Amino acid sequence: MRIAVIGGTAAGPAAAAEAKRAAPDAEVVLYEQDTRISVGACEIPYFVAGVVGEGTLETLTPEAFERTRGAKVRTRHRVTKLDLSKRTVTVEALDFGSVHVEPFDRCILATGARARRLGVEGEDLLGVFPIRTADDALAIRAWLDAGGVHHAVIIGGGFVGIEMADGLRHRGVRVTLLEPAGRVLKDTLSEAMAGPLMEAMRRSGVAVRRERVTAFVTDGAGRLHSIRTDQGERIGCQLALVAVGIVPNVELAQAAGLRLGATGALDVDDHMRTGHRAVWACGDAVEVRRVVDGKKVYWPLAPVGRQTARVAARNAARRGGPLEKFAGVTGAIGVRAFGIEAAQVGLSLPEAEAAGFDAVTAQVTHWSRVRALPEARPLHVRYVAERGSGRLLGGELVGEEGAALRADVLVPWIRAKTTVCEIAEEMDLLYHPPVAPAVDALRIAASAAWKAAAGRSRRRRT
Amino acid sequence: MRIAVIGGTAAGPAAAAEAKRAAPDAEVVLYEQDTRISVGACEIPYFVAGVVGEGTLETLTPEAFERTRGAKVRTRHRVTKLDLSKRTVTVEALDFGSVHVEPFDRCILATGARARRLGVEGEDLLGVFPIRTADDALAIRAWLDAGGVHHAVIIGGGFVGIEMADGLRHRGVRVTLLEPAGRVLKDTLSEAMAGPLMEAMRRSGVAVRRERVTAFVTDGAGRLHSIRTDQGERIGCQLALVAVGIVPNVELAQAAGLRLGATGALDVDDHMRTGHRAVWACGDAVEVRRVVDGKKVYWPLAPVGRQTARVAARNAARRGGPLEKFAGVTGAIGVRAFGIEAAQVGLSLPEAEAAGFDAVTAQVTHWSRVRALPEARPLHVRYVAERGSGRLLGGELVGEEGAALRADVLVPWIRAKTTVCEIAEEMDLLYHPPVAPAVDALRIAASAAWKAAAGRSRRRRT
Repeated sequence: MRIAVIGGTAAGPAAAAEAKRAAPDAEVVLYEQDTRISVGACEIPYFVAGVVGEGTLETLTPEAFERTRGAKVRTRHRVTKLDLSKRTVTVEALDFGSVHVEPFDRCILATGARARRLGVEGEDLLGVFPIRTADDALAIRAWLDAGGVHHAVIIGGGFVGIEMADGLRHRGVRVTLLEPAGRVLKDTLSEAMAGPLMEAMRRSGVAVRRERVTAFVTDGAGRLHSIRTDQGERIGCQLALVAVGIVPNVELAQAAGLRLGATGALDVDDHMRTGHRAVWACGDAVEVRRVVDGKKVYWPLAPVGRQTARVAARNAARRGGPLEKFAGVTGAIGVRAFGIEAAQVGLSLPEAEAAGFDAVTAQVTHWSRVRALPEARPLHVRYVAERGSGRLLGGELVGEEGAALRADVLVPWIRAKTTVCEIAEEMDLLYHPPVAPAVDALRIAASAAWKAAAGRSRRRRT
Repeated sequence: MRIAVIGGTAAGPAAAAEAKRAAPDAEVVLYEQDTRISVGACEIPYFVAGVVGEGTLETLTPEAFERTRGAKVRTRHRVTKLDLSKRTVTVEALDFGSVHVEPFDRCILATGARARRLGVEGEDLLGVFPIRTADDALAIRAWLDAGGVHHAVIIGGGFVGIEMADGLRHRGVRVTLLEPAGRVLKDTLSEAMAGPLMEAMRRSGVAVRRERVTAFVTDGAGRLHSIRTDQGERIGCQLALVAVGIVPNVELAQAAGLRLGATGALDVDDHMRTGHRAVWACGDAVEVRRVVDGKKVYWPLAPVGRQTARVAARNAARRGGPLEKFAGVTGAIGVRAFGIEAAQVGLSLPEAEAAGFDAVTAQVTHWSRVRALPEARPLHVRYVAERGSGRLLGGELVGEEGAALRADVLVPWIRAKTTVCEIAEEMDLLYHPPVAPAVDALRIAASAAWKAAAGRSRRRRT
């Protein structure tokens, strides 16, 4: 059995390794057009900040991967065509200019995603960078290390934009962040919950401006000199980072006739199988089912990519018997930057309403530890719950400490359809003064959400 | 309706307040023999260390409680007899020497627990203290503030002993801890998991000695001069703290004919009702059901006391209709001391085996954050799981950071009978380099436990 895995950034290597584990006698070949595989994109901001070394970007060399995982690795090999009826891939060896057609019995698409471009004038100037690949990271760091960057503009107030802003401040660079919404994490946090992060960024000297870039302006020698905005402003800067999201790489699959979902990513079933029975897909190229409402969403995060890769690989490598099922995403995301932790799990209120839930919200401010301790910090928790049942649909947590890891507790609650009543009344979370107050903020918020959802009369009875 | 609540330390005030909320027209009377109510015993180590003020010990004055909660408070009133057939309490007014018999319709016992005594010679010397009440805390702090304490001996290596040791080191006092087991947290952590805490205590200068105190020796003037141990040693010290556990105050209930459980605490049903239909009980005086195995255990922790108080109060105040049920304890406990966090949830291996489970364990060492970050610290996780099913029965977490709050995630997992397979494969916990590695230690440990429990073949199929 020959299993072709297309794409080597993160999900591809995970899939190739898992396929080889599941079918040790199979020939597993991993195709990657870049020179590197196993790239840790999430560490880029810390590499650019100078906090971690280059080794963090490439967690395993192709040689080490072949040796330890048993799959063959073809770097600098681009798959240009997928022929489903013949079960072949057309592969271009980039260093030799040669093209081969190679057969497969099963194929796993792990083509990932690429940085979204703005499509404005000057986006290719020296000094303007997307933030996605290891090469992007190396180029940004080299640009910074060369000196001369005093002011940077970051385009986009999502997680990557915030992390890069923090990293650049860490290097002493002045930072302006352009975000048409006028605030950060607009797709993740409600306005009030974003406040502490906005305030911390302001204190750190980051200007968040409600503007859109309309052009990158050259210094006349092909280097960035300034940017122009839709407010008619001209902002001088020596570095611009474009962090406006990613788009799945679906062209190869689309050309082969495989279907896309409503999100624009590859459509797969719960076994991670595409419309063709021998072709599976995983990672940032696919859309996945969200557990709360069953809706297909695009949720291109590393832990999910790894999970879908394992399911796709085990199913692709299977010679019979039942298939494994991907359990769906809860949706947990967060950031620690500028001394603030902010995390979100499950559905936001707009998402809950779009999913047809009659949803209520409740927000509380409690403390990270027992309040009397000098280290105690305010902890803001906001829940989204279903009216009537009180089922927890989602939550946001923001604070200087104790917000991000507490968000993990929401993952099992949301998956198990736990109600805010059960959380408030039954969950005996840890109480220890330097760790958590006698009644944890997670339970205080649940009490508030329970009142909003159902009132106190809806209590478990026997 | 007249509801008598006996005992005002923590569960009693919670019960009185809840009873008044549930039945606003009822007369609720809280009897407490001390001058204070609403005492925060868990904060005592931080008060003794000088980190928090005296106000932390008494969270609400009797006057403020009466005003805000609507229940009557009788401090310095000791209930000396409970007459179940007449439904009366005999109350001694300690400041007046008078005795009254007062009727009740419903009674809530919240008599709490007291420090266990060693029963050795010299235990009443000046300088030898139990650690339980606000008066204990004030006495210890006054003794320290008076000066002259250079070396303290702590008897007992449980949570309170560790916290007091940390607090005394914070004040610059030399500390020796005597524990016959030769190590701390013997009832909570397995030997290997206690290692990092033991090592941190050693580095901080705390000597942990495998010895038992046999006598406290006077200086001739009624003050502590030294202690003698079962190893024939004599240890000079100016302060000795006895932290060898607590015993429930059941004498009043026992004299009234109410039954005790096997743990020695009051036996109540899942509605927190004693053997008498008008008498309910809660807090540190009762035993409670453990969710994992349904066994009755003595688990005298504040969050559980608060939960049992609310259930007891709502049921006591009810005039009809179904009763509320206490949902049982998961059992989550932890400490942050000497720069180490240590937490345990659910069953230990000995507890699992005693409960009849065919249990396996797995222990891993992973990282608190992405390993490349300078702040990343080793994080040790040990799971207890059921062989075959892989059901998570319990866990221990130890590390310099990120251990205690991660323990909270085990609470819903254990309550929902989640398997280590589901944790390893399906739980999309938060990934963000400064918060957690791509695969969290909680999932790495689950993979290891799953291998130990069932092998890789037991996977969810469709």
